[in-house]
This record gives sequence, C-alpha cells and structure tokens, in this order.
Amino acid sequence: MKINFTPGPSQLFYTVADHAKVAFKDGIPSLSHRSKAFETIFQKATDGLKELLGIPSDYYIFFTGSATEIWEKSIQNLVEHSSLHFVNGAFSKRYFEIAKQLGKSSEKIEVELGHNFSSITLSEYKTELIALTQNETSTGVALTNEFIKQVRATNPKALIVIDAVSSLPYPAIDYSIVDSVFFSVQKGFGMPAGLGVWMVNPKCIEKADQLLTKGLSIGSYHNIPTLLLNAKKNQTSETPNVLGIYLLSCIVEDFLRIGIKKLRQDTDYKAAILYQALASHPLIKAFVTETSAQSKTVIVAECGENISKINEYLNSHGFFPGDGYGEKKKSQLRFANFPAHSKEQYEQLVDLLGEI
Amino acid sequence: MKINFTPGPSQLFYTVADHAKVAFKDGIPSLSHRSKAFETIFQKATDGLKELLGIPSDYYIFFTGSATEIWEKSIQNLVEHSSLHFVNGAFSKRYFEIAKQLGKSSEKIEVELGHNFSSITLSEYKTELIALTQNETSTGVALTNEFIKQVRATNPKALIVIDAVSSLPYPAIDYSIVDSVFFSVQKGFGMPAGLGVWMVNPKCIEKADQLLTKGLSIGSYHNIPTLLLNAKKNQTSETPNVLGIYLLSCIVEDFLRIGIKKLRQDTDYKAAILYQALASHPLIKAFVTETSAQSKTVIVAECGENISKINEYLNSHGFFPGDGYGEKKKSQLRFANFPAHSKEQYEQLVDLLGEI
Repeated sequence: MKINFTPGPSQLFYTVADHAKVAFKDGIPSLSHRSKAFETIFQKATDGLKELLGIPSDYYIFFTGSATEIWEKSIQNLVEHSSLHFVNGAFSKRYFEIAKQLGKSSEKIEVELGHNFSSITLSEYKTELIALTQNETSTGVALTNEFIKQVRATNPKALIVIDAVSSLPYPAIDYSIVDSVFFSVQKGFGMPAGLGVWMVNPKCIEKADQLLTKGLSIGSYHNIPTLLLNAKKNQTSETPNVLGIYLLSCIVEDFLRIGIKKLRQDTDYKAAILYQALASHPLIKAFVTETSAQSKTVIVAECGENISKINEYLNSHGFFPGDGYGEKKKSQLRFANFPAHSKEQYEQLVDLLGEI
Repeated sequence: MKINFTPGPSQLFYTVADHAKVAFKDGIPSLSHRSKAFETIFQKATDGLKELLGIPSDYYIFFTGSATEIWEKSIQNLVEHSSLHFVNGAFSKRYFEIAKQLGKSSEKIEVELGHNFSSITLSEYKTELIALTQNETSTGVALTNEFIKQVRATNPKALIVIDAVSSLPYPAIDYSIVDSVFFSVQKGFGMPAGLGVWMVNPKCIEKADQLLTKGLSIGSYHNIPTLLLNAKKNQTSETPNVLGIYLLSCIVEDFLRIGIKKLRQDTDYKAAILYQALASHPLIKAFVTETSAQSKTVIVAECGENISKINEYLNSHGFFPGDGYGEKKKSQLRFANFPAHSKEQYEQLVDLLGEI
C-alpha cells in the first residue's frame, strides 16, 4: 500500500472513499444547488466547521473553487489601496504577488526561507489588510498564536487575514482577534481537491460593502456581498462542487466524533517523534531549526546529497514524501502530518528513517 | 429508481460512479497536480475533447471552478470597454450583468422569453466581444449554427464567445468562426458539478495579452496568460478539481467510443418524440413555439394550472423534471435531454405524459 506524505493533495482521510460511495448511491451529485437537500448539506458543513474549529457565530463561511481563488477574492474585496504581506516562502509570496497583479500598492516584510518573523520588531503599519500565512507549505514554517496576537496588538485597525491552507484543523486560531481565515480541503481535511473554504467576520463584509459603494470593482459572482446573500440561504452563487461540500460535511462530522482535542494531540505526537528522529539522524536534519517556527503539519527534512537514497528507501516501503519546494526540490523532503496520517504510519516512518 | 431530468446538475452518465470508484482505488485524488500522472490525465481530457467536439488544434482548453467563473474571466480578459450580449433569458442576462458589474460599458440586444433572435436584423456592432448563449437553460431556446454564422458574417472583427453550458456535446459548433466556447460538466457530460471548461483560440490569447500590456487588471491565477502558461505543460495554475478532470477524461473516452454522431442522433430522436408528445397533448404544450428556436437539450413544457398534477404523476413513476425558471416556476417544467438520459427513459416519459 502507498502512503502519501505529500503536503497536498495528500493522503485521503480513511472515510472519504466510503462517503463518496454513499454520495453516488444517494444521488448527491445530481442534487440541485437550489434544493432544500443541498441547503441541509451546506448548513451541516458550515455549522460543523464552526463547532470543530471554534469559529464565532457571527462569522460567515463561503465556498470557492480553491484557496488560490481566495487569495484573489480577499484582495479584491478587502483592499482598496494596499495590503501588507509577511513573506517567508513561495506561498506567502504568491499571495503578495496576486495583490500586486490586482493593481494594489501592496508591501511585504520578507525574511529568509525556514524562518518565522521573530526577528522583526512589529509596529503599527499603514495598511488596510495584513496577510499572514499561518503555515508556509513550501518550507514548513508555522506562525505561533502569540505572534498573531502581537500583530493584532500593534495593529488594532487593519483587517488580519490568515492563510491556514496547510494547517487546519490543527491550529487553535483565536478567530476573535483576526478577521478572516481560509483553507483548502485537500490538505488537513484529507479530501479530493477542488474546494476552498473562506471564513469572514462582519468587518470583512463591511469593508467589501464600502469598496462597492465607492464604485470599485470587487468581482462578480464571488464577491463578498453575493457570497453572503447566498450563504444566508445556505446556498452558493454558482453551481458549486456539491460533492466536495457534501464530503466536507461528512469529514467534519467524523472529526467532531474523534474530537478536535485528540486530532491536535495526535498531530503533536506525530510531529514530536518525527522532529526527534530528524534531530538524532546522522544524514538528515530538520530544515527549520527554531523550535517555535517548526510546523506541526508540514515537516521539512534537509537531506542534502543523500536525498535519493532516503527517498528510494522510503518509497520501497510504500512511503511517499513530497519533494522539496522549488529550488529545494533536490535537497529536501516534505512530510505532511495531517489527520489522514495515522500514529502507526508515523511510527513506521520514524523506524524506516532510523534504518537508513 | 429516480430519473433526474433537471437541466443541471442532472442525471449522472451511467459510467460516472464506476469511474469514481476506480479513481479512489487508484489514488487519483491524492495525485500532485504537478506530477506526470496528472499531466497525462489533463492531456487525455483536453485531447479527447478536441477529438469529440471537432475543436481546431490551435485552441487551448482551460479548467475553472464553474462556467459562472468563465462569465467573469472571459469579460476580464477579453473586454477593455464593452461587450454586446444577446439576451433572451436569465442566464444570457446574467452574463451581461456580470460584464456591467466588472465595470464594462456593455450593451444588450434583448428579446422576449421563449424566442431566439430571428426578429433582429443583424449589423456590424461597435463592440469588442459578442456573447451568444447557444442554449438558454432558463427557457429552452437554442441558437442555430446559421444564426452564429450570420453574426460572424456581419461582425468579422469582434470576438465571438459562445456559452454552450447546457448543450455540449450536442451542437456541432463551427469553432473556426467563433473565438471561445465554454460549458460546465454537470449538464451534457453527466458529471458531478465543480468544473468549468473554457476553450479559447489564439485571438483570445492575443487580446488578453494586449489588455495586460496596457496595464489593465485581467485577474490573477486564472487570467488567460497564466492559464495558458500552465495548460502548455498540461497543468493548472492552482490545485484544481483533479477528480473532476479525471472523470471528464473518462466520460470523454466513453463518448468517443459511442461516437458523437450517435450521441447527436439519440438527442435528436429523444427531442423529437418529446416535442411531438407536447404538440399533441391536450393539457401541455412546448413553451418555445418556433421550431428553429426549440432547444434539443433543454425542453420546456408549458403546463399552466395542470403543473402539479403532471409533476406528481411523473414523480410517482420516478421521473423528476426540473422546475420552470424564476417566474415560470409555477407553470413550466423543464426536461433535460442529455446523453445520460436514455432513449428508453424518454420513451417512457412520453408514454407517461400520454397517460395524463
């Protein structure tokens, strides 16, 4: 059996294929997205997410085609002039670049790959929106809740948007001190790709309305006012990925049954044994050295010239890590640590690494 | 068994559930969208579509989250100042409204519901793009190839974009006289929703490049230059609906095996017997009276005050037509006639209508 440790699309959560089977049997993909049955699925998914992640009741949850789409839509709907991006890898950088592409005078605070922003002295920035990539998938660097708290403390007015694409449901984000959080389902939720999930608070809705009133173009069918109008009816603007929303509603139910506490504990355990294995290994080490910056959900191993040997050994046992990102493709391996990856699989992974 | 005649999401093509089963077994949803395996699926889907629909080799095929997204992206990428929309129902109108929302000085030529544009004397319009809804899903009106030919003859310069959302693969569109065609997979292709398919010729690519060079914002990850850059590698800009693209590649293969000629003949046959049944029925009639305007793929029945009786009788036999659209909800029923609907099912449908 092949176990997929790529950081997304990744290993499917073990219940997904069965949920899909039921979906086809029950005719879910043929449901009209204007039907009561669809509204029930939409509500089960969004209510379940709020319960699972501890999202305040005044947040709205929207569905898009991808988290990449949310990069675009969040800038279009929440920024008139400029956003500020904390950049420490390829994905935080791409969010910044999309803002520039959309004609905004956006700025970035950039640090070296493999680091968080502990070297930066925070201040109040002249910006409408601060974009934080909670988990930088390319390098395996996570931001702490403490850091996010400090950004809010120094910036009481700016909207804070959290890209948690490759970390949720793991991080216990304090939704009351940020304004928007988003993720995509093919990572921590162990689902087929094709669905982005965008959570926004009333300040985001207000901001989009302001831009619209000013006569700015904030997009069409997926602008916040249109998404909101439909979400209030548990509907979507367009015919959405109904199967994806259905599968999400099922996975969220499964996660609620397991409990967020256990999901987090298991993630901590698996991360701990892998980082421990890397720390004691003669040929491999963790790319991110600062403990507080080490992601628990995407763990990056610096393998140097031994990478082929290591990868082949793991592959021969059915374990498939992800390549390093971009220029690190030939020296690093990335290990997703999502709920779909069991403790037993991580224990085997650690054993295999020990044999190299 | 329930047979779904709603015009989308509609009845699934009978092979879809099995293809999905294979996909889960083979780990398709866990494939990286940067892998060779994904590129092979992408190419199989796009090459297959070109063969099935007779699309010229210089066209590119892009994937989006929905056809609604293509309304937005086509305006952003192909229109600087204004587009012209032929409006004869809710969906052609929404395309026009999206253009206005995006700040374009767009115009429309509007006719009454249930009619095509045979009453209009065509001329050369001062516009960059002419938007034609080949099949108006809300009313069951289709445009003929002859009409599209006349629009091109009178407008040699404007880009012509064809919304064929609820008709493909049926219509034999002459791709050499138009510039872009798009559809979504949950209608004629009998698939789960969540994927839009956008076909563009080199003139579209050129136009998007021109707008970009002028410094206009044409969107980000799904602008034509970015879609093109990735499509050339058989890839997508974002993590796409991989399962959807895989299922499309399988359905296209199935359709190729059946043959486009037979798919079209069967559609003609099914449409003919239903329109015949409506013509001879004492209580129901076709909403679209002009034969040349009658859609073969979405057939709308005017039921007047007998609608509940008719609907209930059909439902009791497992036949579920779609509601009329908008204000026609309480008087019309819509019947999708897609490859997923067999000749036998249509014969039964006609028999059932005869019993009322």
